[in-house]
Amino acid sequence: MEYRLLDGKATAARLRAEIAAEVEQIVKNGGRRPALTAILVGNDPASQTYVANKDKSCKEVGFAGDVLRLPETTTQEELIKIVNDINANSSIDGLIVQLPLPKHINPQAVIAAISPDKDVDGFHPQSAGKMMLGEETFLPATPMGIMTLLKEYKINTAGMNCVVLGRSNIVGRPMANLLSQKGIPGDCTVTMCHSRTKDLAKYTREADIIVAALGIPNFVSADMVKEGAIIVDVGINSVEDKSRKSGYRLVGDVDFDAVAPKCSYITPVPGGVGPMTIVSLMQNTLKAYKAKAL
Amino acid sequence: MEYRLLDGKATAARLRAEIAAEVEQIVKNGGRRPALTAILVGNDPASQTYVANKDKSCKEVGFAGDVLRLPETTTQEELIKIVNDINANSSIDGLIVQLPLPKHINPQAVIAAISPDKDVDGFHPQSAGKMMLGEETFLPATPMGIMTLLKEYKINTAGMNCVVLGRSNIVGRPMANLLSQKGIPGDCTVTMCHSRTKDLAKYTREADIIVAALGIPNFVSADMVKEGAIIVDVGINSVEDKSRKSGYRLVGDVDFDAVAPKCSYITPVPGGVGPMTIVSLMQNTLKAYKAKAL
Repeated sequence: MEYRLLDGKATAARLRAEIAAEVEQIVKNGGRRPALTAILVGNDPASQTYVANKDKSCKEVGFAGDVLRLPETTTQEELIKIVNDINANSSIDGLIVQLPLPKHINPQAVIAAISPDKDVDGFHPQSAGKMMLGEETFLPATPMGIMTLLKEYKINTAGMNCVVLGRSNIVGRPMANLLSQKGIPGDCTVTMCHSRTKDLAKYTREADIIVAALGIPNFVSADMVKEGAIIVDVGINSVEDKSRKSGYRLVGDVDFDAVAPKCSYITPVPGGVGPMTIVSLMQNTLKAYKAKAL
Repeated sequence: MEYRLLDGKATAARLRAEIAAEVEQIVKNGGRRPALTAILVGNDPASQTYVANKDKSCKEVGFAGDVLRLPETTTQEELIKIVNDINANSSIDGLIVQLPLPKHINPQAVIAAISPDKDVDGFHPQSAGKMMLGEETFLPATPMGIMTLLKEYKINTAGMNCVVLGRSNIVGRPMANLLSQKGIPGDCTVTMCHSRTKDLAKYTREADIIVAALGIPNFVSADMVKEGAIIVDVGINSVEDKSRKSGYRLVGDVDFDAVAPKCSYITPVPGGVGPMTIVSLMQNTLKAYKAKAL
């Protein structure tokens, strides 16, 4: 089968250009730049990379804002105090707290302290609840980016059998919710599979859409996929590759080379869901800015 | 197959007795009675019956509280003002606003005005969000009652294939969420089906558990159910029955007489999910009372 790439990289680039043009217009009209603040506690190397990438992307579209790097020894009280200060700072539109936090800090308490108006990650319980209830809110960036990508390619998902692999709060669970809601994309019959699912391939082989968010390299193999399926690969796994200078390469949760020929559409890794996640965070920040400007 | 009833009526009676004993002890120790206030706007006959039943059940276990009956012409601002007054009244533990509200009132705005600490219906976005994220909160009464019933009968749901029929915010959606979360009951592979699902019987025939919440009388027929399935019937539909003095009888979404012989467990209608819903509301009210007493 001739498959088509769901090109997150190109789509995100186009959306970034739209955001940049809008910001330029705002500034030309004498407006303040939208501003995102990211808080990073401790020295987790992966988190440092993620936060730096988000910050760089935001700067590229003309956002203001910065990264607050706090020591590993920051207490929960100190962190919540800083969150409250940012909540009260009217020149900051969006606030994200990079997870995971050090073990002595309760992430639920910190996320709950973020003002829902600035919760551009969509992790606050109120944001999650509004999403579940189908109300207007900030959607979490990865599921939001996937919905945008399906819309971009005009995929009519109504009535499709969708299987979501993984039940995390930031990807699997919101993804299942959004795809089952009324609308396009949406109106899917959604099955959520996870580590306790028996005979998982039985579900995936029937699926019109598979969203793989398990974090297991190359987990979805060709025999698990039916002809013509649409595959969205959320996995970003680092595997050893001695042929590369870095010694590793990134692979998804889907065995791309084997699976792609059976698909109608498939996201590459990298260049699929990843760029859509970051641009969704930027869209949310611009939305927070505009909501305040009203 | 010899099926077993999931007896909501008997289970709810036992739980009511537990609550009544606890309230009696509280009062004996000089404590205030837990109090639930229900607000009813307008004259919808079904709503009047529901609210009267809830009020009666609460009185039976020794709760205080009452029903505020407001005229159909009540404005949204007036209603929210009343909600705020009850939020601020420390002698009221739980507040429910009976839905549907008259057309000129936005139910989202009213529900959002309820203090999450008194949201014993679990309809506030923050309650819905915490439920979705697996955090401690008030669960909506019907899904909560079903979880309690499955626990009562020690049904080990881990790894079961569960099909939820219906995607409403108060039953189908939270039910799918709870059954897919870690824990017992839980850890199911959950498929949510709805009006846009194609070939719905294909899903139900594979299901170990079916939760039917569509509101269509006798929708689930014997050929849609596999041998040994567990059936939870949320439907309460009134159908004409000239053999009865009232002229009607209540039936579920499941064709009980035909389906029961194929099941391992099944809820009757009435006497299944209905009583569990009301007792769950009472459990939430007692929980709200105790959370405040701490």
